[in-house]
Amino acid sequence: MTTTEHIAPFPEDGRRRVVIEGVYPEIDDGRFAAKRVSGERITVQADIFCDGHDDLAALLLYRHQDEHQWRKVPMQHLVNDRWEANFIPEEMGTWYYTIEGRVDHFITWKKDLGKRFTAGQDLEVEREIGARLIEEAAERAGGSEDAERLRRWAHEIRTAADDPRALSLAKEDELDSLMSVHYPPQLSTHYEKQLPLTVDRPRALFSSWYEFFPRSCGPADGHGTFADCEKWLPEIARMGFDVVYLPPIHPIGRINRKGKNNATVAEEGEPGSPWAIGAEEGGHYAIHSEFGTLEDFRRFIAGAAELDMEVAMDIAFQCAPDHPYVRQHPAWFRWRPDGTVQYAENPPKKYQDIIPFDFETDDWKQLWEELKEIFLYWIGQGVKIFRVDNPHTKAFGFWEYAIGEIKKEHPEVIFLAEAFTRPKVMYRLAKLGYSQSYTYFSWRNTKWEMEQYMRELTSAPLRDIFRPNFWPNTPDILPEVLQYGGRPAFVMRFILAATLSSNYGIYGPPYERFVNAAIPGKEEYLDSEKYAIRSWDWDDPDHMRELIARVNRIRRENPALQTTWNIHFCQSDNDNLLCYVKTDELRENILLITVNMDPFNTQGGSIRLPLEELGVPPGQPFLLHDLLEDQREIWHREWNGLELDPHTVPARIWRLYPRLRREQDFDYFM
Amino acid sequence: MTTTEHIAPFPEDGRRRVVIEGVYPEIDDGRFAAKRVSGERITVQADIFCDGHDDLAALLLYRHQDEHQWRKVPMQHLVNDRWEANFIPEEMGTWYYTIEGRVDHFITWKKDLGKRFTAGQDLEVEREIGARLIEEAAERAGGSEDAERLRRWAHEIRTAADDPRALSLAKEDELDSLMSVHYPPQLSTHYEKQLPLTVDRPRALFSSWYEFFPRSCGPADGHGTFADCEKWLPEIARMGFDVVYLPPIHPIGRINRKGKNNATVAEEGEPGSPWAIGAEEGGHYAIHSEFGTLEDFRRFIAGAAELDMEVAMDIAFQCAPDHPYVRQHPAWFRWRPDGTVQYAENPPKKYQDIIPFDFETDDWKQLWEELKEIFLYWIGQGVKIFRVDNPHTKAFGFWEYAIGEIKKEHPEVIFLAEAFTRPKVMYRLAKLGYSQSYTYFSWRNTKWEMEQYMRELTSAPLRDIFRPNFWPNTPDILPEVLQYGGRPAFVMRFILAATLSSNYGIYGPPYERFVNAAIPGKEEYLDSEKYAIRSWDWDDPDHMRELIARVNRIRRENPALQTTWNIHFCQSDNDNLLCYVKTDELRENILLITVNMDPFNTQGGSIRLPLEELGVPPGQPFLLHDLLEDQREIWHREWNGLELDPHTVPARIWRLYPRLRREQDFDYFM
Repeated sequence: MTTTEHIAPFPEDGRRRVVIEGVYPEIDDGRFAAKRVSGERITVQADIFCDGHDDLAALLLYRHQDEHQWRKVPMQHLVNDRWEANFIPEEMGTWYYTIEGRVDHFITWKKDLGKRFTAGQDLEVEREIGARLIEEAAERAGGSEDAERLRRWAHEIRTAADDPRALSLAKEDELDSLMSVHYPPQLSTHYEKQLPLTVDRPRALFSSWYEFFPRSCGPADGHGTFADCEKWLPEIARMGFDVVYLPPIHPIGRINRKGKNNATVAEEGEPGSPWAIGAEEGGHYAIHSEFGTLEDFRRFIAGAAELDMEVAMDIAFQCAPDHPYVRQHPAWFRWRPDGTVQYAENPPKKYQDIIPFDFETDDWKQLWEELKEIFLYWIGQGVKIFRVDNPHTKAFGFWEYAIGEIKKEHPEVIFLAEAFTRPKVMYRLAKLGYSQSYTYFSWRNTKWEMEQYMRELTSAPLRDIFRPNFWPNTPDILPEVLQYGGRPAFVMRFILAATLSSNYGIYGPPYERFVNAAIPGKEEYLDSEKYAIRSWDWDDPDHMRELIARVNRIRRENPALQTTWNIHFCQSDNDNLLCYVKTDELRENILLITVNMDPFNTQGGSIRLPLEELGVPPGQPFLLHDLLEDQREIWHREWNGLELDPHTVPARIWRLYPRLRREQDFDYFM
Repeated sequence: MTTTEHIAPFPEDGRRRVVIEGVYPEIDDGRFAAKRVSGERITVQADIFCDGHDDLAALLLYRHQDEHQWRKVPMQHLVNDRWEANFIPEEMGTWYYTIEGRVDHFITWKKDLGKRFTAGQDLEVEREIGARLIEEAAERAGGSEDAERLRRWAHEIRTAADDPRALSLAKEDELDSLMSVHYPPQLSTHYEKQLPLTVDRPRALFSSWYEFFPRSCGPADGHGTFADCEKWLPEIARMGFDVVYLPPIHPIGRINRKGKNNATVAEEGEPGSPWAIGAEEGGHYAIHSEFGTLEDFRRFIAGAAELDMEVAMDIAFQCAPDHPYVRQHPAWFRWRPDGTVQYAENPPKKYQDIIPFDFETDDWKQLWEELKEIFLYWIGQGVKIFRVDNPHTKAFGFWEYAIGEIKKEHPEVIFLAEAFTRPKVMYRLAKLGYSQSYTYFSWRNTKWEMEQYMRELTSAPLRDIFRPNFWPNTPDILPEVLQYGGRPAFVMRFILAATLSSNYGIYGPPYERFVNAAIPGKEEYLDSEKYAIRSWDWDDPDHMRELIARVNRIRRENPALQTTWNIHFCQSDNDNLLCYVKTDELRENILLITVNMDPFNTQGGSIRLPLEELGVPPGQPFLLHDLLEDQREIWHREWNGLELDPHTVPARIWRLYPRLRREQDFDYFM
């Protein structure tokens, strides 16, 4: 523990008069990194000021981890001593940014010179003061060409025929830039921290996930293989997904194996839960033999890649009782006085098929290394996306270590945290390095809830650390709205997930088939695939795959849906109509989305568009292109009525063209 | 500049699973101290959590700078992983506080034991697990008596006749406290910072200032002496003030001396501005000879002390052109190419009677030392309160140095920052060490403005760093509301200042006499005392001194008015009626204050009292004692009508007794 010495005697150089504070983004005093993806702008702000009335200049300094020179960009003063600048990081990895602030006597002199001139004061002495400032800069420039140019400027200002001429010389851009370069270094304040920024690849921000159990891909009631799974890939790609996520593919424990619907004892031949990892034949490095070989798995990954999809793997750091670790590394587990190993419990509930690691083991370093190795092994097999099971039940320090070390060598790896737990725990995991996170989306049902939650996610500090991934269902979660809301609920929740968040996913086979049978009183699937092999009919015409394909195409064609940060909620006079505008950064791509949050009844009402912000001239018509129905309308008012029938059109996704007369709009009419 | 190493390899001990973040108060990452006065509680909060489902315990650790042992107090869990504890610092000086969090396996075991018992599970193995936890604690306790007691507990739990008996043994307080003391240290997380807290004496939080120009204390139009000033003290004390503040008392420069109403050239015999400090005979250490001697000044201080008042001195770090420093330390000033010294300017405005110090001088260390010495000299003469003139035009680093160094030896010294400037500059000065600050109060006129401003001042981060001092007027500021609002405005603004803020002051002689003559178009006094000696008639019966005395007595008798932090604004249906409740910490002293913000018209309306928060039982009557008029009323409703005539009763200050039947209430009726 270090004592904060807040009362310092003399500072290093008391002539540094500029203060830099309130820097944004700065996560926990710079202890953690903010997040961006390649090509995504980061805007940095700070309060910068000094005593007295002198003028300031400020620079944003930034560099990639491998660069030793700072790149610099001038900051602009906004209002109330707040300054701002931005940059767009391209390369993946860690970037650093910091700020330099300066009292600028040259700018002050220039500004005052103008004021004095306007007031009719004599400028002779003032011109001499300026000339000397410039000559001092020439001194600092040494023998360089700049020194010569600066001396010429000083001479010209001193000898100018009259004050107006001197004033106009003082304002020349070349002089300004020379003076800025040869600034007296002792008058610069450097912000005391270099703040880190993690730059991921674009898929960390924009991804569409499709989850399925590979063992259900086989012929009816047989155990699917990776070869069977490959046959599903073209249809998943046709629907527009880019991440195919599989639950664990490792051997499943036989001791205390769970049966259908979570029965404590499995019947002979039941497959068990894929999350009860490990058996005599192997653990987290092994592939369940009924899927095939490692070679088959690599072929499956390659098959997905040919369709521009990636395979995400499930990492669940826990063991079945017969996992080899339990025998090989007894120190990594807790042992009870009766000689048995401690299985997972949340008293009085018991989960006998799962043994947690003991993160308080004295052997913690070796445990951490081994778990990190599991990631590295699968990265070696071509997996670059991991969905991590229950990360909130493993020590936080481990995640910071493992993700940090892995990303040093593999900055392209994406980690999705499956932490459905308390908010501060979820946000801490994001700070520790998770690229994406599951959210409370599944339980936000009303317009008010959804607006509140989106505001929380898109505001500081979450905006800079927590990338949401919205799932309307998972194998663990069949929300009540889907249980009771019928097909309209499935469509509505899908459109919400896919348009509110740039990262989203579905547990596909039961979703697209509107499966809503739950264990009574729970949000769990009846006959869950977690404990049983299911058979899905891909030729059944009764599904929502066409709608899914259309929405995913809209996502790909509209940059507005490729980030989560640019959302604006619109007023509506019906509490069941959620209405929002999403745009790309330059507002060239504008989407207007309205969703009926009530899956049971038709809802009508009026919505109010922020026309001025959207660039619609007052009183002018604007074009709306309904991207779901491929229909066009022309509106011209701020308030507009509409009606949404959940059984036919539960939502509208319009592209909005603010000016009707642009050529590209005419194209739509032809 | 240091690189923030945000990606750490192995931490010191990976078994520490608890996270501590979001600590409040923590000013700029602990770079600056929070503020309290002796006897004022500080409540510390933090987000504390760990992975998984284990129970936590957390301690707040705190100590005075001279103590080497931490005092410890258990923190309580509030909600959403937020924990809280508090302490009351008594001694002045710097305190430090930090937090320790622990995964507590004993508490977890105890809680789970109960759940298992309720669920009818067999507890045999669980009892053994608990007994071993206790025996491990006994090991850590070494050969102490505690070790023996712990082993006895383990034995009793192991051998208890039945599970209910074991359960009740496990819950004993003695065992709990023994286990807490002998906690395994490797499982504790210590927050990485020790956060500083400046503890001032109570007057830093509760003070009533009276400002006057000592040179106006003499016989008509003559120059007053300290002996003349002493004659004013009894009346100032009778009015209830405890700080007597004098503008600078040093020799006044003769070169470029200002004349009446800020005339550029003084007439023969004009006294000049006291802020144009220094002349041939001396500078900041000297006393203007017309006041008398240093001995006279010390007698004046002693005279005030006898009346329980303190003298606050004005420190203005600037020089008249004939100040000895200009000759002795030319390096401390800027020199122009024409050989003249640079006077104060805000182009095109010039202040030729004032020379600022150049804080960018190479000789900055000697300058800082010298300025610090000025404070120390006057502290040696008995001055413990300084009102610092324009601190925002001196380098920030200097203030942190000077105040920090001075308070190390003299923690009782109070500094008031006269910084009327941009908010972030004012707040920075508070962080650097100023005990109190002038505010924007003088320009907040409407109910909405005042509520907004009070919310800003009483919320984090300002609540912990910035102690407001409200002034309805100063020699520099005669606000328009006083110029045009007549006597009602003087009464209304006085009551606002004295009841909204526990620190307040008036520039007394013109205030209590309703002087409102301003320079046209400006907020400046006509014939200001800054440039001229004025004569004030103390026998004139037409003044507001009785009201001032009454309000100051109310302040002394009611703890609710002795802090600024405990304010609650009440709804009112008239935008001219500002209504607020102030209480002491324990809500034993409750004041209800309503002010008519309109000095021109009678305003009536209804106000809504937060009866539940005030402890008034629903439907029950409660007593209001009007402390200004000494009248009593009984109310019983949430909404209550009232009318305030600015010419007779512009404000009401009620003490509210929430229960009518208390004995002390009956006293009032007898």
